Amino acid sequence: MGVGEKIHEASKRFQEAIRAADAIQSLGLHERCQDPAAWRDAVSGSGAIERYWQSFFDQRIAGAQPKTEEVIPIGEYALETGPYSVFGQDGSEIDRGKIMVLWKNEGGAWKMHRDTWNSSLP
Amino acid sequence: MGVGEKIHEASKRFQEAIRAADAIQSLGLHERCQDPAAWRDAVSGSGAIERYWQSFFDQRIAGAQPKTEEVIPIGEYALETGPYSVFGQDGSEIDRGKIMVLWKNEGGAWKMHRDTWNSSLP
Repeated sequence: MGVGEKIHEASKRFQEAIRAADAIQSLGLHERCQDPAAWRDAVSGSGAIERYWQSFFDQRIAGAQPKTEEVIPIGEYALETGPYSVFGQDGSEIDRGKIMVLWKNEGGAWKMHRDTWNSSLP
Repeated sequence: MGVGEKIHEASKRFQEAIRAADAIQSLGLHERCQDPAAWRDAVSGSGAIERYWQSFFDQRIAGAQPKTEEVIPIGEYALETGPYSVFGQDGSEIDRGKIMVLWKNEGGAWKMHRDTWNSSLP
């Protein structure tokens, strides 16, 4: 399996964790991960990022669908970019935008190292 | 000069180009650069990105101050993250947030390859 497919799989696990809303701990987050999330200051460390995402979907969202559009493999790292959609409890799209994730290969497992996103809505 | 300092210099040139508001063409943009800019769909190609930034500061901003906080060197690439501030014509801060830029070394010159940012304001 190429790097692109492996990143796509890791990204799918992230998406499923958000949908399941109970498995945020299982996300492939690097301990030194930083998440310059939109609409607030950056979040650092896997624990804080898990809590951030937990609070995010606890309140507002039913699911998030990031799509792997491009993967640039760079040695032990890979940069993923693509669009995302976020859905509310009634199934309607409440946000859409773009993600940019730097993944890092740690002993064979691809983990989120830097993760950012922004909305395309005005 | 290390990769970090070179990225910092390239980033400063970008900042000065925005402040000068007349040198957007001189930005170190890769031809295949993509800019998943906030509040709209992603912009692709150096020409389109120059026009995007031109229209952006033509209308609303007097200057932008990105700050290189971290540089992760990855071979011919480097990932830069850090905060930014945007100032209005009266000098007040009208926005602040985070940037994440993937730079690519092309024959010794560091060029923006993927550039994204989001606001920290609600």
